[in-house]
Amino acid sequence: MSKARVGVVGYGVIGQRLADAVYKQGDMELVGIVDVAPTLALRALKERGMPYALYCAQDENRAQLEEAGLPVSGNLIDLLKKVDIILDATSAGVGRKNKEIYKEYGVKAIFQGGEKNDIVDVFFHGYANFDKGVGKDYLKLTSCNTTGLIRSVDCLDKAVGIEKVAVTIIRRCADPGDTHRGYVDLAKVEPVPNHQAVDLMTIMPHIKATGLLVHVPTTHGHIISVVATPKKKISREEVLANFAKHPRIRIVRIADGFDSNTALFRYARDLGNHRGDMYEIAVFEETVSIHESDIIYAINIPQEAVVIPETMDGIRAALRMHASQEEALAATNKYLGLKPGDAR
Amino acid sequence: MSKARVGVVGYGVIGQRLADAVYKQGDMELVGIVDVAPTLALRALKERGMPYALYCAQDENRAQLEEAGLPVSGNLIDLLKKVDIILDATSAGVGRKNKEIYKEYGVKAIFQGGEKNDIVDVFFHGYANFDKGVGKDYLKLTSCNTTGLIRSVDCLDKAVGIEKVAVTIIRRCADPGDTHRGYVDLAKVEPVPNHQAVDLMTIMPHIKATGLLVHVPTTHGHIISVVATPKKKISREEVLANFAKHPRIRIVRIADGFDSNTALFRYARDLGNHRGDMYEIAVFEETVSIHESDIIYAINIPQEAVVIPETMDGIRAALRMHASQEEALAATNKYLGLKPGDAR
Amino acid sequence: MSKARVGVVGYGVIGQRLADAVYKQGDMELVGIVDVAPTLALRALKERGMPYALYCAQDENRAQLEEAGLPVSGNLIDLLKKVDIILDATSAGVGRKNKEIYKEYGVKAIFQGGEKNDIVDVFFHGYANFDKGVGKDYLKLTSCNTTGLIRSVDCLDKAVGIEKVAVTIIRRCADPGDTHRGYVDLAKVEPVPNHQAVDLMTIMPHIKATGLLVHVPTTHGHIISVVATPKKKISREEVLANFAKHPRIRIVRIADGFDSNTALFRYARDLGNHRGDMYEIAVFEETVSIHESDIIYAINIPQEAVVIPETMDGIRAALRMHASQEEALAATNKYLGLKPGDAR
Amino acid sequence: MSKARVGVVGYGVIGQRLADAVYKQGDMELVGIVDVAPTLALRALKERGMPYALYCAQDENRAQLEEAGLPVSGNLIDLLKKVDIILDATSAGVGRKNKEIYKEYGVKAIFQGGEKNDIVDVFFHGYANFDKGVGKDYLKLTSCNTTGLIRSVDCLDKAVGIEKVAVTIIRRCADPGDTHRGYVDLAKVEPVPNHQAVDLMTIMPHIKATGLLVHVPTTHGHIISVVATPKKKISREEVLANFAKHPRIRIVRIADGFDSNTALFRYARDLGNHRGDMYEIAVFEETVSIHESDIIYAINIPQEAVVIPETMDGIRAALRMHASQEEALAATNKYLGLKPGDAR
Repeated sequence: MSKARVGVVGYGVIGQRLADAVYKQGDMELVGIVDVAPTLALRALKERGMPYALYCAQDENRAQLEEAGLPVSGNLIDLLKKVDIILDATSAGVGRKNKEIYKEYGVKAIFQGGEKNDIVDVFFHGYANFDKGVGKDYLKLTSCNTTGLIRSVDCLDKAVGIEKVAVTIIRRCADPGDTHRGYVDLAKVEPVPNHQAVDLMTIMPHIKATGLLVHVPTTHGHIISVVATPKKKISREEVLANFAKHPRIRIVRIADGFDSNTALFRYARDLGNHRGDMYEIAVFEETVSIHESDIIYAINIPQEAVVIPETMDGIRAALRMHASQEEALAATNKYLGLKPGDAR
Repeated sequence: MSKARVGVVGYGVIGQRLADAVYKQGDMELVGIVDVAPTLALRALKERGMPYALYCAQDENRAQLEEAGLPVSGNLIDLLKKVDIILDATSAGVGRKNKEIYKEYGVKAIFQGGEKNDIVDVFFHGYANFDKGVGKDYLKLTSCNTTGLIRSVDCLDKAVGIEKVAVTIIRRCADPGDTHRGYVDLAKVEPVPNHQAVDLMTIMPHIKATGLLVHVPTTHGHIISVVATPKKKISREEVLANFAKHPRIRIVRIADGFDSNTALFRYARDLGNHRGDMYEIAVFEETVSIHESDIIYAINIPQEAVVIPETMDGIRAALRMHASQEEALAATNKYLGLKPGDAR
Repeated sequence: MSKARVGVVGYGVIGQRLADAVYKQGDMELVGIVDVAPTLALRALKERGMPYALYCAQDENRAQLEEAGLPVSGNLIDLLKKVDIILDATSAGVGRKNKEIYKEYGVKAIFQGGEKNDIVDVFFHGYANFDKGVGKDYLKLTSCNTTGLIRSVDCLDKAVGIEKVAVTIIRRCADPGDTHRGYVDLAKVEPVPNHQAVDLMTIMPHIKATGLLVHVPTTHGHIISVVATPKKKISREEVLANFAKHPRIRIVRIADGFDSNTALFRYARDLGNHRGDMYEIAVFEETVSIHESDIIYAINIPQEAVVIPETMDGIRAALRMHASQEEALAATNKYLGLKPGDAR
Repeated sequence: MSKARVGVVGYGVIGQRLADAVYKQGDMELVGIVDVAPTLALRALKERGMPYALYCAQDENRAQLEEAGLPVSGNLIDLLKKVDIILDATSAGVGRKNKEIYKEYGVKAIFQGGEKNDIVDVFFHGYANFDKGVGKDYLKLTSCNTTGLIRSVDCLDKAVGIEKVAVTIIRRCADPGDTHRGYVDLAKVEPVPNHQAVDLMTIMPHIKATGLLVHVPTTHGHIISVVATPKKKISREEVLANFAKHPRIRIVRIADGFDSNTALFRYARDLGNHRGDMYEIAVFEETVSIHESDIIYAINIPQEAVVIPETMDGIRAALRMHASQEEALAATNKYLGLKPGDAR
């Protein structure tokens, strides 16, 4: 089979990482990226020698990009004519408008978590509902927290059956490098239930979920505390064993120094990972416990990169690139350098 | 009855507030405070005109205090001869040594949460186990989070019976004004269960508790997310009604702007409360909900002041100042200006 | 003379403090405050028993205020008919519109630093150009940093003559309690010169000023580093002596624990100051030095309260309440509890 | 000439980067690294496949390292027998003890800024005093701020002659990933002059320097504001032109989005730099200005990596690897991928 031809629209925090990931997939071709202005992300791309072709969203953006020394290969329409699928990583709300253009040119698209569910055929998660995405034209990925949370809950659900979950999400208020938002000395509470619990139930309707979300002044990941009620008894060891074989879950020990979001970020930098990114969620081993038959655990969500693998899964589903979910997930995991584990 | 004669040893974040609170109790007399060095807290006391008499911990501290212009009324032993009870708010570990001196002089004492349980007769909470403290010589208060958490759990437990709780505590890493500790851009996870869950079970042994604690870079209070399983069904309205009548619980609405620890801190400053303190925990109304029969809610713990009322209760218990718990709590609440509510 | 009748429009961070300060002036009467919605500040006022009369900005605001239990004494026009002067502490830009109304009703007004200079007769500082404000109808106060900076530069200028200054301002990115803005892990640089240097030259045209402004993730005050070139030699001791006698400057020692913005904030809380406020700027004694004949020093600006005294001075100037600047400043200082010092 | 054989003792924030940098120098060989415990840095090295040989500091450390799966090639003494020079990046104070061992085995060493000046032959900066280090046995590098500050001052000094400087340093209180220190909502002031000004004068005794240091809650770099008095007039354009040709200075524009320490950190991550590091200091173009003949500018110091190039210079000096400073600096710059510029 020829390679899947992919374009990325919006080259921000997520878009950059989608482009890098597509570039790593042996069975995909990154045809180009699209943006509107000479952001620092594009200036860095230029300093790296323009490994990816740049298209302007509209012709009126071309001059500003070229003035900043960025070579422009064409506009969005030019790109659409060359690709099978678009990964839309624009700001929330823009995707809805873009979809009409994609539709006109008969190009499939995958949107990120910020868009509304009603613009797509399916709200998608690579592990939890892959089959629903097969052959579909428009998918929307779960947001970063929901993606990571579902990874862990789905893992337990497949092992033992989960009846209900209650989560507490402690989330960053800005990304590293954000100079337009943030908080100082503040923990801000949202009404219960949070959207992640609601989203989890949309993807996994057999589980009752609720939760609280608290914003805190950090930039490097989210901590989610989970109370999951299983349908039958499970031991702490079995919980850990199930997490351990998941290719996108890393078990880390507080005793080793993995005690925080930022320790994981530093570790990823020290690993030499591009941008200091990590695709896996981390389970803090010392938080895994059984309380009156409930499963208790806490995970770290690296918000900049966590949705990337599931987005690659989405391409594989939408374009029917594989005979099965197993094959699709295994391909994504392999190209992203994730441990083989149990591809499910 | 003559007034209870009280001394405060250690004039730091908690000690200052204990002194202020004793000063407000119509049936107590603040005989003096004890410290070792001319801290900013003592310099502020001096600028206020020395409303409280200062004693040095040891004679060797006297010169340094006097050099800073602080009049010294004597040493710790001098103070012990004039009081019925000491509130020990020294750094963790110092209380154990001090206890030997208090014992020698036949003075009762109440220690703060940082000390070990084994140095006291009873681990005390004004609402949950007042009777255990009656007439005892050495009490230890629960720590700030445990004090506030127990207020809310005890309130529900008395209403409907609580079987188990799972909590997530999002706590500050420093007090306002701390220049010796803190974190930047970091959410740090502790092993499960946290000590607050263990402490809750020590005070309320009929409830199974567990929880996760996460340190975040804030200074103005802790957010605790609670999943409590009641023994029988209870509605959201009943939960709110029970919280509403508790004198030390404030129900606040996110919609009104009470969306964070810091909004509550600003509000307390705007109220004109001394030091911008608040004795009550706050329940965020929009977080109170029933999930598959579990009670879900989130509270704010103002860590600087929350233990003050229960410490006043402790004085009343240890010195047998009242015929009943009801009378004791009502007295504390009245003198601290808390709403009469249901003194339980 | 009858008391000056004052109204405060906008009851936010600055407006609340202006109202409190007017309330303390023995020769002024706070007729009322004006706002549009039931903010936490107004809810706190209600919980305090409504010591100040509330007026709605427009009649359409009345219902919302009353629903929140806030008694409304009338609207802005009703208030204008009862006052001699308005302190306008609305959001930047609103003052310009309000001025037209004040003008229509023949009421003088003082605006805060956020408004443009062109809407007023004079850009005012109580110490540096009091005489320019005498009898004027519309004054604008300098912003918090400029107010505090000018206090210190004017103090030295009067002593020895200042030729030029270069400042570095390290400023907070949010006020305590702000949940709508802030930064995490970020020091953000503005182009040189900052507006404070430009403003200083507007008020003190004989001094050449420049400076850099850096935003940092703090909420409790600004640190300004100053390099001032005097016209003739001055010793470190003389610099300190001049600062020491200024009623609105506090000399503090790092060695005593006054090492930061937050140490000063904690101290003000411990003093029992309302809201934990401080009117004085603080000079860090150990930063005061002479470098190749330049004067070097660093000050702390308590941004919530620093402009309050100079605004009181403005009322005294605009309403010609005193025979001289000396008398006016002395009155403000006395009513705000500032040290008598050298009222200049 | 055979390659210089280099060992790195202490594999923390700086040690890791020194090892990586030596590894990149075509004319050096990284023989091994030394540490005592299985830190996250070593665990990351293991996950990367142990590209560098690990030695234990003492034999008693071996077991703990091996238990964590880290292969140990020997102890410090074994390493000393194979190298020409050691880069000591241990915690402050340890270097002094280590020096005795290095001496015993006749190995040269370069210490980092935390050590005292008296343990070395020369306090070294690659650009400002290279010749003083030539052939010396024990060098100490300037600290991160001093290194970057001197780069810029030396650059101007060589162009026009600098008479005096006054700096304000706004520094981070922790490194990214630090979980053992930090501040919240705090700007902390140190006495004037700061050690960086004193250090600058040690390296460049013909310049009079002073300055203020303020700690703020950030982790990604320091901002230094500089007022430099030149010996003769220089225009803004000439200042910029001199900075522009320096291989270790990057001129960035606030208008382009380079408005903060964190924007530079994100940019370095987006460049794909290992660990998201940057060797260059950045000059914010819009801060460069001439004020009454003084040169004003602000720079960013990437504290994790800034000293790496000058340390490589130090190896070249101590081992007399080159005929001139020019050749030495050019070699370092080339191997680190810095722009050729004007190697001076």
